[in-house]
Amino acid sequence: MSMTVSELAEMVGAKVVGDGRVVVTGVAGIREASEGDLTFLSNPKYEKYLSTTGASAVVVDEQHAAPREGLALLVSDQAYAAFARAMEIMGPVEDRPEPGVDRTAVVAQDAVIGAGAAVGANAVVMEEAAIGNRAVVHAGAYIGRGVTVGAESVVHANVTLKARCTVGRRVIVHSGTVIGSDGFGFALGEPGGVHRKVPQVGTVVIEDDVEIGSNVCIDRATLGATRIGRGTKIDNLVQIGHNVVVGEGAVIVAQVGISGSTEVGSGAVLAGQAGIAGHITIGERAVVGAQSGVTRSIPAGAIVSGYPARDHRLTKRLLAGLSHLPALFSRVRTLERRLDEMEED
Amino acid sequence: MSMTVSELAEMVGAKVVGDGRVVVTGVAGIREASEGDLTFLSNPKYEKYLSTTGASAVVVDEQHAAPREGLALLVSDQAYAAFARAMEIMGPVEDRPEPGVDRTAVVAQDAVIGAGAAVGANAVVMEEAAIGNRAVVHAGAYIGRGVTVGAESVVHANVTLKARCTVGRRVIVHSGTVIGSDGFGFALGEPGGVHRKVPQVGTVVIEDDVEIGSNVCIDRATLGATRIGRGTKIDNLVQIGHNVVVGEGAVIVAQVGISGSTEVGSGAVLAGQAGIAGHITIGERAVVGAQSGVTRSIPAGAIVSGYPARDHRLTKRLLAGLSHLPALFSRVRTLERRLDEMEED
Amino acid sequence: MSMTVSELAEMVGAKVVGDGRVVVTGVAGIREASEGDLTFLSNPKYEKYLSTTGASAVVVDEQHAAPREGLALLVSDQAYAAFARAMEIMGPVEDRPEPGVDRTAVVAQDAVIGAGAAVGANAVVMEEAAIGNRAVVHAGAYIGRGVTVGAESVVHANVTLKARCTVGRRVIVHSGTVIGSDGFGFALGEPGGVHRKVPQVGTVVIEDDVEIGSNVCIDRATLGATRIGRGTKIDNLVQIGHNVVVGEGAVIVAQVGISGSTEVGSGAVLAGQAGIAGHITIGERAVVGAQSGVTRSIPAGAIVSGYPARDHRLTKRLLAGLSHLPALFSRVRTLERRLDEMEED
Repeated sequence: MSMTVSELAEMVGAKVVGDGRVVVTGVAGIREASEGDLTFLSNPKYEKYLSTTGASAVVVDEQHAAPREGLALLVSDQAYAAFARAMEIMGPVEDRPEPGVDRTAVVAQDAVIGAGAAVGANAVVMEEAAIGNRAVVHAGAYIGRGVTVGAESVVHANVTLKARCTVGRRVIVHSGTVIGSDGFGFALGEPGGVHRKVPQVGTVVIEDDVEIGSNVCIDRATLGATRIGRGTKIDNLVQIGHNVVVGEGAVIVAQVGISGSTEVGSGAVLAGQAGIAGHITIGERAVVGAQSGVTRSIPAGAIVSGYPARDHRLTKRLLAGLSHLPALFSRVRTLERRLDEMEED
Repeated sequence: MSMTVSELAEMVGAKVVGDGRVVVTGVAGIREASEGDLTFLSNPKYEKYLSTTGASAVVVDEQHAAPREGLALLVSDQAYAAFARAMEIMGPVEDRPEPGVDRTAVVAQDAVIGAGAAVGANAVVMEEAAIGNRAVVHAGAYIGRGVTVGAESVVHANVTLKARCTVGRRVIVHSGTVIGSDGFGFALGEPGGVHRKVPQVGTVVIEDDVEIGSNVCIDRATLGATRIGRGTKIDNLVQIGHNVVVGEGAVIVAQVGISGSTEVGSGAVLAGQAGIAGHITIGERAVVGAQSGVTRSIPAGAIVSGYPARDHRLTKRLLAGLSHLPALFSRVRTLERRLDEMEED
Repeated sequence: MSMTVSELAEMVGAKVVGDGRVVVTGVAGIREASEGDLTFLSNPKYEKYLSTTGASAVVVDEQHAAPREGLALLVSDQAYAAFARAMEIMGPVEDRPEPGVDRTAVVAQDAVIGAGAAVGANAVVMEEAAIGNRAVVHAGAYIGRGVTVGAESVVHANVTLKARCTVGRRVIVHSGTVIGSDGFGFALGEPGGVHRKVPQVGTVVIEDDVEIGSNVCIDRATLGATRIGRGTKIDNLVQIGHNVVVGEGAVIVAQVGISGSTEVGSGAVLAGQAGIAGHITIGERAVVGAQSGVTRSIPAGAIVSGYPARDHRLTKRLLAGLSHLPALFSRVRTLERRLDEMEED
């Protein structure tokens, strides 16, 4: 792919400062870029690299719109989004199977493969499954009985979608992820006795525009559905228990665990390695700090952290208090001595 | 599947209150159920839904045995187990390969496939492996050299069982799980030097009736065997290091990590995201709280939590103390002022 | 494999104490070993087993070189390394595909398979990929477009390597691991709005002699490369975000998470379940304790623990202080009472 800065600026909705005739052929980081590359000022502390970068062009925000010798600027008040669009246009070709069903894929006779859809090498599509138009099922993926994958969704290599789960449109599921395994449900007959499996006969529903990272687990509901709302983004190695319901546009960072039957409101953000207890509610747009342990429901808009998770400012005060604890011990010791001396007098 | 409440009640060992001739055709959650569905009162706070549910029949315990207009009751003093059995009978058909070896599976000539066993599409069974009678190996699973899978066990899609591991009878291994990868063992020649791999030549033994979730890792022993005792249940994304020995009937919740050579006693419960140090012992029926970090052995029956993990009541007291720390600082400041004033007098 | 203790001692660089003509045929743990087995004293607290072991020979360090009746000793000042070498020689045959491309593997026409390399059953190798000499790609693995796997590397069953990633020589990647999935990068258009995906067009570079456990995730860079330095060892279920750079010879234990753009210095050790924030630096040879949460850069050689992670000795003092907090409350209460009494006088 090769185009002028002016052509690219028009496509991504930026204005040009400098020479719009400069040709760009690829994208690179501001420190690694060389001639022909487009780059991006992503981090204010990288501002110094603007004067040393080898790139031919750079996407910047309005604050960095001053002309620079030998560097074409694409200026946008939504610089990150503009660069994202530029990467889509200029980025390298990724691996994906050709449209159609690979001759080594195993597709049940009554499965439906949409127009323009691709099913990669050694992928398996079971009975009654339906793959939407222009959807891509990569090599080695498993699409269980009765699963539906919506139009333009991408199921990456070695993903497992178990029976009857539904995946919406434009969803991305990264490699190694398992959706629809049995929830962790057992009935204890008597103390110390055998753990009797409770059949997990519900499903998982992934709504449109969700992206799910690698090696994630989303368990099927005992009854009903485990549900991930439209536009929610889930990072790698996340655990989502049976009957969890996540709202729209939530952000769930790597290695988070959400126990069964909990509800996570729309727009909530769960930072890395946080753990959420079962049967509680995380309010809309609430923020849970990294490594927090949330043991009770938290209201909409709350910002919590720590274990047990509490208001983030309180947690910070308590951790600060903990830091000063050795000093407090000394102060109490001093008080005791002073009092002893006074009483001796 | 379609049957009367009386027929179903007999099969699950419940007694009928109301009209036993009512026909049920499926199972659903108490809030989602409609005509023809059997449902279950799983959570006391859902009791209110008993009067509004659209279900035709409901499994309840003795406390909720009073007759209800238009709703057939299946009453049992083990209601959860009765409903579990009902779900087994009434639940939907799941995805599973037909008995026999799929024509796309790759099975070594000297591997043994038991009577009635199923090996799914694109599964791979290596030399000297043995699949028990009526066992199921789903699509894309890998059964390594010399592995044995016991009768009636189920190995789900895209599972990896490495060489010489043994899986007992009626075991369930969910998708993406890896059993028998090398333990994390290295010898450091000299400081800052090269980490030399210690060969991991032991195995993993999974005893009968174990269930293992998705994307779990159970490493092979350096020597001898990593062992999971009969009836133990392991949730998703759990890490079990080399030479760990887990007793019978233990419960290990999602994202727990157990370091090498640790022993976990029978009936122990490790809650979500807990971490257990290596070379220690968790006593029988001990309970480890969520996100705890266990650094020393704990005795049978102990209940521990926090980091470092201690007696749960003590941890609660310490966390309560932490909550009151800002107040304690004020009290000490007040004391200092009062003493200053007294001394000034 | 069968050889005399003298032959084996010569091969592993140990000297013999006792009868060098004793024949060994296998390896086993000190408690499980029987006649014909070689074993190893790995743990000082197992010293007592030296007198009861059923083994025919044992590798010990210089401190345990005193002759023992009926037990041949292989004495080395690097006993662990010597035993590791012995296990390589004496250990069982593991599962691996035969050299050459299995007839069920799917290899793109323009992919290059090196001399003596093996590609297992149902593995998939995409366009422009290159597998080095004597490298092994196990069954069901996915090698994406333009990926290179170096000579003598081993990619285990059901691994996924996405487009354009490069894996060095003598690298081991265990089953279920995913390298080169998209980093977790989204641009928020406006509050509560849609999370717009930022294309992840960089790659992952795994240098020579790295070992990576099972079900690990290493994301591709947004731009440039996520990089794992030579000789670094990574345990199971580890998360490594986009643009992370890990130096040489680092050790990253199970379930650790490293957020995007963080740099981990050579020789650093990150213990189990630790979490590292994004855009920070972990200095060379620094040690991060298990379950720690590192929120700021830490210098070379530092030892940190706790949340937020601080100097390990300080964390120990603070945790000790926390333990004594209930006592401190009592002491302050006593002081208050004493002061009240004095003022009343």
